[in-house]
Amino acid sequence: MDSRFLQDLIVPAQTKIAMIIMDGLGGLPLDPGGMTELETARTPNLDALAARSALGLTVPVGPGITPGSGPGHLGIFGYDPLQYPIGRGALEALGVDFELGPDDVAARGNFCTVDAAGLLTDRRAGRIPTGASQELAKLLQTIKIDSFRFFVEPVKEHRFAFVMRGAGLGDALTETDPQRTGVPPLPVRALEPGSEKAAWLANQFVQEARGKLADQRPANMIMLRGFAKFPALPTYSERFGLRAAAIAVNGMYRGVAKLVGMTALKVDGTTIADEFAALEKSWNDYDFFYLHVKQTDTAGESGDFSLKVSVIEQVDALMPRLLALEPDVVIVGGDHSSPAVLKSHSWHPVPALLYGKHVRADGIAQFGERACARGSLGILPAKDVMPIALANAQRIVKWGA
Amino acid sequence: MDSRFLQDLIVPAQTKIAMIIMDGLGGLPLDPGGMTELETARTPNLDALAARSALGLTVPVGPGITPGSGPGHLGIFGYDPLQYPIGRGALEALGVDFELGPDDVAARGNFCTVDAAGLLTDRRAGRIPTGASQELAKLLQTIKIDSFRFFVEPVKEHRFAFVMRGAGLGDALTETDPQRTGVPPLPVRALEPGSEKAAWLANQFVQEARGKLADQRPANMIMLRGFAKFPALPTYSERFGLRAAAIAVNGMYRGVAKLVGMTALKVDGTTIADEFAALEKSWNDYDFFYLHVKQTDTAGESGDFSLKVSVIEQVDALMPRLLALEPDVVIVGGDHSSPAVLKSHSWHPVPALLYGKHVRADGIAQFGERACARGSLGILPAKDVMPIALANAQRIVKWGA
Repeated sequence: MDSRFLQDLIVPAQTKIAMIIMDGLGGLPLDPGGMTELETARTPNLDALAARSALGLTVPVGPGITPGSGPGHLGIFGYDPLQYPIGRGALEALGVDFELGPDDVAARGNFCTVDAAGLLTDRRAGRIPTGASQELAKLLQTIKIDSFRFFVEPVKEHRFAFVMRGAGLGDALTETDPQRTGVPPLPVRALEPGSEKAAWLANQFVQEARGKLADQRPANMIMLRGFAKFPALPTYSERFGLRAAAIAVNGMYRGVAKLVGMTALKVDGTTIADEFAALEKSWNDYDFFYLHVKQTDTAGESGDFSLKVSVIEQVDALMPRLLALEPDVVIVGGDHSSPAVLKSHSWHPVPALLYGKHVRADGIAQFGERACARGSLGILPAKDVMPIALANAQRIVKWGA
Repeated sequence: MDSRFLQDLIVPAQTKIAMIIMDGLGGLPLDPGGMTELETARTPNLDALAARSALGLTVPVGPGITPGSGPGHLGIFGYDPLQYPIGRGALEALGVDFELGPDDVAARGNFCTVDAAGLLTDRRAGRIPTGASQELAKLLQTIKIDSFRFFVEPVKEHRFAFVMRGAGLGDALTETDPQRTGVPPLPVRALEPGSEKAAWLANQFVQEARGKLADQRPANMIMLRGFAKFPALPTYSERFGLRAAAIAVNGMYRGVAKLVGMTALKVDGTTIADEFAALEKSWNDYDFFYLHVKQTDTAGESGDFSLKVSVIEQVDALMPRLLALEPDVVIVGGDHSSPAVLKSHSWHPVPALLYGKHVRADGIAQFGERACARGSLGILPAKDVMPIALANAQRIVKWGA
């Protein structure tokens, strides 16, 4: 279904939609035949809500595909992640929780070693430790060119995320890594007229960086690869007619939400309860609320099954505060799975719950992977959840007589 | 799956397929946790058939989309409704239950007011009451131009559906509404050479209409918008190799069925039993029978839960007459949902039952929304039902060695 098709059927309404995303929600049992994190968690509020909801399992990108948080979020936000691929540089920035904006061109950076003649002797500067990179990054952060802003965020060892911020920067740029030693790093070239300013700026930055690093050993130079802006997306207002607010603590999620046109609300504090408080405070001002819980994913990725269970139980305990606001439609789900036994993101479909007055409830009084597999939403692409939520919020008119 | 791909695998067979469509079949409970119309209805025959069938829920157009009857029927007939959008004029005609044919160009019409100089003073003629429109429509129905036929069917207030019928009429036509007053209505212009005859005819009609309405007040002129033919569709014979018959009382459904190449059978009377009698009478003459029950939708749209229940029970009581004919494959479903609590069409998936000798039966002895959600057809696009039915009727050969 073409997104333009849906856009033409959107109508205004007074209804409110709340989407609670537990990052990496989907899990696996510790032992075969056992229960997943969500099934293990004591969730009386979510179970009671499930009984009045339609359940299903969302497929973030496609069968067998393990998504990063960027594509995972695009899916649950209602965009086809395959239609809006996120370039490597933008992924590197998102990966260090950088709040990427619409004027940002990101790249993958790395420290390297050049000789006195400027020829590469080590493309990875001996894989210097992350701590050393952090010190070097501080030197680069002092670089100023006109009114542009630069961000240098260490990733691991010699790698860093690099971001140039300013109006009129394109991302059709060549890389500086010649892929071999004995030659100098390449200059950045613009592949399109719209990227010429960015090419100039990147080359200026590299030149200044070389000066700042001249006395350092072994890392005395940088290389930049995979220049990319975040893909331009139609906003929630344009696509869905929604005044949307995002409640997230971590920069990456605030950034992605802002890139789809949500207002990132101020959260006083960093706990999940603080996030629910921010939601309560702004309840009258928006039609749609995305509330992001990071801790489920962190627990999953660190392999801490019982911590993930306990985070889910915290969210469950906060659900009555959301329901007290009488939202018309509630989505509870995740952007992908992060089973503690895998200590990583995974390809498994993600439990999803859709509550609303006009939902045809499945009558399954449990929110868990196997309960959701029996639900009437079926196993559906994550991007299909938003249209169904909008329909339940009576924001889509009939198509055809 | 491309429709051409399927077409190449179709083979003849002696098998017979019956498709019973209860319009707007899908429903909702009156109260949260309660039963839908179909779940409430006492349906011993359908329940027994369900036990020997595969069950599922059909999605008429796409997630969250509430279809009109036109797109809803294209879906259950096996066509992708998004591939064959129905233009505004054709929708207006279908909406007043007009039996649209392949040579028909339909438009949205409205009565308006012009001054002595022919300049528009009110584009809606003061929204005259529907009864007044009906009288004016009678005047226009007397217009004759060559061998063409014209139909003027009142919709509501100043609005009417307009249809020109005759060979060689295209629908690439401009509208006559200038969208403002103080200017005369615009002439119809052809946007393609194939529509020039239709442009000439529409202008002739408007001129004659002006003469007929000259002495009327306030509606003394008409405007025409959204010219459209029904989209040209490959027929059931071409696509599925089926000699297909349609049994429907209402013009709209007879029209859409004929447009996909079905023969609309004569029904003596207007009851559901009369429709089953027509099916019995022609059983030997066709491979495929579409039997349409309008009353479920009428009850749903008027908010009459118990009437809808009772219509479903009537259909259930007639099922033994169908089964006595020993059809090879039986589909029971709907073109969309029309829950009585919503008093309108809705986006909810529609219960579907597929019976046949070679069906892998789910063993669920109940035909209802939640029973179907557990069925092995899954939650599937409505257009996918026909290929599965054809396979069960042994009308599709193996693809590849």
